[in-house]
Amino acid sequence: MRSKRPTVAIIGLGLLGGSLALALKRRKSVHLVGWSPSPRTRRMARQILTVSPDLVTTVRNADVVILGSPSSAVAGLLERILPHLKKDALVMDVASVKEAIVTQTRSIPGAAQHFVPCHPMAGSEKTGVAHADPRLYEGRTILVTPLPGNSSSLVRRAMGFWKGLDAIVHRVDPGSHDRWVAVTSHLPHLVACSLVENYESARRREPQIARAVGRGFRDVTRIAASGSDMWVDIVTMNTAEILKNIGVLRHRLDILDGMLKNGSRAKWKRFFESAARSRMRL
Amino acid sequence: MRSKRPTVAIIGLGLLGGSLALALKRRKSVHLVGWSPSPRTRRMARQILTVSPDLVTTVRNADVVILGSPSSAVAGLLERILPHLKKDALVMDVASVKEAIVTQTRSIPGAAQHFVPCHPMAGSEKTGVAHADPRLYEGRTILVTPLPGNSSSLVRRAMGFWKGLDAIVHRVDPGSHDRWVAVTSHLPHLVACSLVENYESARRREPQIARAVGRGFRDVTRIAASGSDMWVDIVTMNTAEILKNIGVLRHRLDILDGMLKNGSRAKWKRFFESAARSRMRL
Repeated sequence: MRSKRPTVAIIGLGLLGGSLALALKRRKSVHLVGWSPSPRTRRMARQILTVSPDLVTTVRNADVVILGSPSSAVAGLLERILPHLKKDALVMDVASVKEAIVTQTRSIPGAAQHFVPCHPMAGSEKTGVAHADPRLYEGRTILVTPLPGNSSSLVRRAMGFWKGLDAIVHRVDPGSHDRWVAVTSHLPHLVACSLVENYESARRREPQIARAVGRGFRDVTRIAASGSDMWVDIVTMNTAEILKNIGVLRHRLDILDGMLKNGSRAKWKRFFESAARSRMRL
Repeated sequence: MRSKRPTVAIIGLGLLGGSLALALKRRKSVHLVGWSPSPRTRRMARQILTVSPDLVTTVRNADVVILGSPSSAVAGLLERILPHLKKDALVMDVASVKEAIVTQTRSIPGAAQHFVPCHPMAGSEKTGVAHADPRLYEGRTILVTPLPGNSSSLVRRAMGFWKGLDAIVHRVDPGSHDRWVAVTSHLPHLVACSLVENYESARRREPQIARAVGRGFRDVTRIAASGSDMWVDIVTMNTAEILKNIGVLRHRLDILDGMLKNGSRAKWKRFFESAARSRMRL
């Protein structure tokens, strides 16, 4: 009864899993099945793919399995599905933290034969399958952080999977990954949340401050609207790197405090010019 | 030789002045003249409006004068043009700091008969007349902070001018204005610059970090690309409020540091949920 097309199983049907389902459906060259631990998500996801009755059934015939769950659930899920996988099944996750996941999974027997950790940098402040977008991965970067025991052909298959979705794929060690995203994603997220908190406490004193919210504030704080479960995992699983960056930012704020108190116009001009130049280079 | 249409003179033809010129041109109901202290800007601006030979000629026949200069230049410009204005001329600025401008101008003889301080919250990280956009003001908020001596009819004219560009206009005292924008614009700008600085110093050590730049980082740091002169004025003219906000942010980072070291998942969940809720309310 199975088709000759490869079967892709998606476990966890949030924004990333749901968008992947839509992207693969467009390509029509795979058979898609999915499952989510949430009954509500399973109900909604039925509109976009075949939903299996349970986890084991979902992965049993899959050639590719995507774990679309938050970082803290990846190792446990992998352990549960490993005994039920086809011999050549490729398993990938989409979680935002990689060093902890590599550490947790590298010693699971059989994990390296199947599992290649991946991080698509393709989030959005809109979460859940309801916001799934078939073009979410196009042009986005996927950072692939192989396990020490992965074969090079397995890693090639993983990278090829994402390239097939028109993503840009880079291979990197998990330590560098976590160091990089602490700078480009985790610190910015905590800062955006802090700016929103600061605004919110001002708004409670002075509701009219809402009149002074412009496009700039919306841009800076957009990411603060993201889902909380994913972020609780991130701060608890990339703690050391985030702490380091919080420390650097506190130091930079101390310097700004000093410049506000005694800085020259020339010094401020250099500060803003250098930031603008760096931002334009991005 | 003068037309019966009211004459609007725009002094300073950057993004805000240039965009205003384009917006007014579309309406065709005013005669437009402009001037900029920069010969290069004057040359470029000739494509969008009549450029006068000098400042005094520009304002002499104007019914409305817009000072499109950075905050620190407003009071000086106003003093220079006051003796040359028509009896009923309305003068407005577009600067981002208001308390200092009100303090500097309220005691200039004759200022209150003409000058109504205004702040269109309609910037962009793209600066200069080359990025002028006729729709820049549509739907944007204009905060109007009258001088103590302004007549109510002059203030009404000022507010009506911006409403005619489909902007949303609010009247507010200059102290509240500066307190609000410190929260919604000035602190976020300094933070965006600091995040870019932090990234840049990481990039100098590890150029490959560029691979980990996603849409989130671009959004958070977009405003850091803005013009530096305007921002040097802001940090030197709204220093006390910005210092207060830097202090609050440092305190919030201390709390995050503590949560990273000992925080419970429940506490983090509350933190992220509350930030997301507040952001979604914006």
